[in-house]
Amino acid sequence: MRCDVLAVGTELLLGQIIDSNSAWMGEQLAAHGIDSLLQVKVGDNVGRIVAQLERLLVDADAVIICGGLGPTHDDLTRDAIAAVMDTRLEPDEAVAEVIREMFASRGRRMPDNNLRQAMVPVGARIIPQTRGTAPGLICPVTIDGPEGPEERIVFAVPGVPHEMRDMFERAILPELQLRSGEPWVIASRTLRTWGESESGLNERLDAVIAELDDVGNPTLAFLASGWEGLKVRLTAKATDLRACDVLLDEWEQRVRNEVGDVVFGVEQGGDPVTMESVVLDLLRSRGWSLGLAESVTGGLVGARITGVPGASEVFRGSIVSYATEVKQSVLDVPPGPVVSEAAALAMAHGARRVLAADVGLALTGVAGPTEQDGQPVGTLCIGLVWPDGELTQTVRLPGQREQMRQFSVITSLDLLRRTLA
Amino acid sequence: MRCDVLAVGTELLLGQIIDSNSAWMGEQLAAHGIDSLLQVKVGDNVGRIVAQLERLLVDADAVIICGGLGPTHDDLTRDAIAAVMDTRLEPDEAVAEVIREMFASRGRRMPDNNLRQAMVPVGARIIPQTRGTAPGLICPVTIDGPEGPEERIVFAVPGVPHEMRDMFERAILPELQLRSGEPWVIASRTLRTWGESESGLNERLDAVIAELDDVGNPTLAFLASGWEGLKVRLTAKATDLRACDVLLDEWEQRVRNEVGDVVFGVEQGGDPVTMESVVLDLLRSRGWSLGLAESVTGGLVGARITGVPGASEVFRGSIVSYATEVKQSVLDVPPGPVVSEAAALAMAHGARRVLAADVGLALTGVAGPTEQDGQPVGTLCIGLVWPDGELTQTVRLPGQREQMRQFSVITSLDLLRRTLA
Repeated sequence: MRCDVLAVGTELLLGQIIDSNSAWMGEQLAAHGIDSLLQVKVGDNVGRIVAQLERLLVDADAVIICGGLGPTHDDLTRDAIAAVMDTRLEPDEAVAEVIREMFASRGRRMPDNNLRQAMVPVGARIIPQTRGTAPGLICPVTIDGPEGPEERIVFAVPGVPHEMRDMFERAILPELQLRSGEPWVIASRTLRTWGESESGLNERLDAVIAELDDVGNPTLAFLASGWEGLKVRLTAKATDLRACDVLLDEWEQRVRNEVGDVVFGVEQGGDPVTMESVVLDLLRSRGWSLGLAESVTGGLVGARITGVPGASEVFRGSIVSYATEVKQSVLDVPPGPVVSEAAALAMAHGARRVLAADVGLALTGVAGPTEQDGQPVGTLCIGLVWPDGELTQTVRLPGQREQMRQFSVITSLDLLRRTLA
Repeated sequence: MRCDVLAVGTELLLGQIIDSNSAWMGEQLAAHGIDSLLQVKVGDNVGRIVAQLERLLVDADAVIICGGLGPTHDDLTRDAIAAVMDTRLEPDEAVAEVIREMFASRGRRMPDNNLRQAMVPVGARIIPQTRGTAPGLICPVTIDGPEGPEERIVFAVPGVPHEMRDMFERAILPELQLRSGEPWVIASRTLRTWGESESGLNERLDAVIAELDDVGNPTLAFLASGWEGLKVRLTAKATDLRACDVLLDEWEQRVRNEVGDVVFGVEQGGDPVTMESVVLDLLRSRGWSLGLAESVTGGLVGARITGVPGASEVFRGSIVSYATEVKQSVLDVPPGPVVSEAAALAMAHGARRVLAADVGLALTGVAGPTEQDGQPVGTLCIGLVWPDGELTQTVRLPGQREQMRQFSVITSLDLLRRTLA
């Protein structure tokens, strides 16, 4: 089974947006045993979209077109597909109704051009929209093969990543797996780690990796993912999911034997296991509430934590004390350098008191561009107070302003995790 | 002049690496008036590389192949180019010597396979390597056109971004400009907007777009960019940058005449003009400080604001009052529904008082998954207090939890912007 990708959008060719969608789809397709041998970027031009689509359909069983489904004059994917299907576009009343309701629910008038998104090539099926206004399309195409007509399938999805991913997982992947009829299934399990470099992990896992290279199944890959952690992904291939799990169980244990100390979560399908979700679960299991005091991160820790549904059971709030006077007036931080373990500890006590929380976690540091209190850019001081103890830690983090701030979030939450565990 | 791009590497198709090289090249080419109409990713397979290269050379005057120049068995770009040139590879002693010296200078033994990088198609010129071990290639190709043979040019550069960029600027761009002999340059100007849907903007700009379609220069495109705002990009082509600016000035004004009310910033090269940077500049110009009270966003507004270097001159801090008791105890919010304009206003007053700020901005709402205080998911109540006034606003925002929270950030900051402006 081969499924190529056609990314549509002049902004992609102009480099104003980097096409990460086709890479994501390529990874998903590979993980499910489907080849993706060509991925093409083309601009908002019907003639060129049609030409590329027809070319890809010669060798590929399926093609996913990503982008160009919006309501505006330069959204031309629907027209191109209709041309390749040699059919016409017709309005789909059900789709139009969904779009009207979407605007109505926001109390906004719907500009008429939104109905362009309800135009569907005759013979195509809809992938219902759940997040945006444009539905996806599943379009059967017949091409002239060397030995007569051949069946192909074209999928169209919006270029907005979360809409694309939703439709890919909900409709495209199942359809492709159904058609591929592959005898075996593939399952991936990801161990999320924090506290060890990629090369360090690689070194500690040398023997395991060498063994995996011999057996060939499962495979192991490292994925550096910023403040999502450094991921170690095991991918197993077998005749059914249970057999995959047996393999994954065995090798997850092998990996844990070497680097278990830095593993904070495990994912296999389902929701991502983020550092903040792990910390919230640990706090919930202890019946402890959390209060934050943030300076260098400006609210980023609270923002991440409240990104997890149900955080309100545990999370009280955060005192973002960016100005020194606020640290002193609201959190009772004593005079002195504010980038210090003493200040961080005082902030943690202040957060615990002001927010009436069981646990107080505080961050103060230097994100740059310039040093502060004689501390270099990258310095992070963490203060942590819980019902039966307290501690502080100073670390030096790499990266520019935003990366340093993001690493500060996961590093401080990891300290809390290790303390609770 | 048209120059397409062929990115080589199976890891690109598998999504292990995102191809940002072709986007960078596309931006550079456009900035110099050279079209790049197709950008293709292909794996490490000679047959497919050759097939794609030959296809691209039909319509493009030049093709840049990026990647596959390394020393290992799966670096096949040289072989593919030789096949397309219908010639053979010969060792280049000068290149080999440079590679040997590079290893010697690092006191390292040179694995023999490095000499593969000294193999050059007969008839090709070298782009000397200054950073890596693999040189780039400039390869004249003759293809069979409809009216007989036609001249094309193929450039090959390593996939390592800094090596690619160095060779692109040093050798490829000058060669392309020489060959294109085109006298004109291209400049883009982006207007960032908030408060109108993409389809709404499109409708309000119908007449302008129709006129632009006639004149053909500048071009106009919409880029929906989440909480970065909805971008309207004008791209002008002229004999020099000043002439571009004249065109852009004229049409920016035409666009502003129609939708100026929702434009919050303008970019033309240089740093991005984000909503938070605009708001910080407005506050700075008034000498006013800012204090926040966040609930639904959990700290996201403060995090965005403190992402701007120099925010500390204006930003005092944020009271992230996620728990209802914190709203009451820290911000003196009276009992009653917390997702309401009354609560938002009380929070704004509380933030202003507790943080000793001139301006207090507060957000309370429902990000989901379930409704709250009888308010549906997507509800955002904003409270704003400044030295000579106060106001509240309730809006309904689209999207899932994270998108709703992000839209809450830019929507509340836009209300502050409009109030200050």
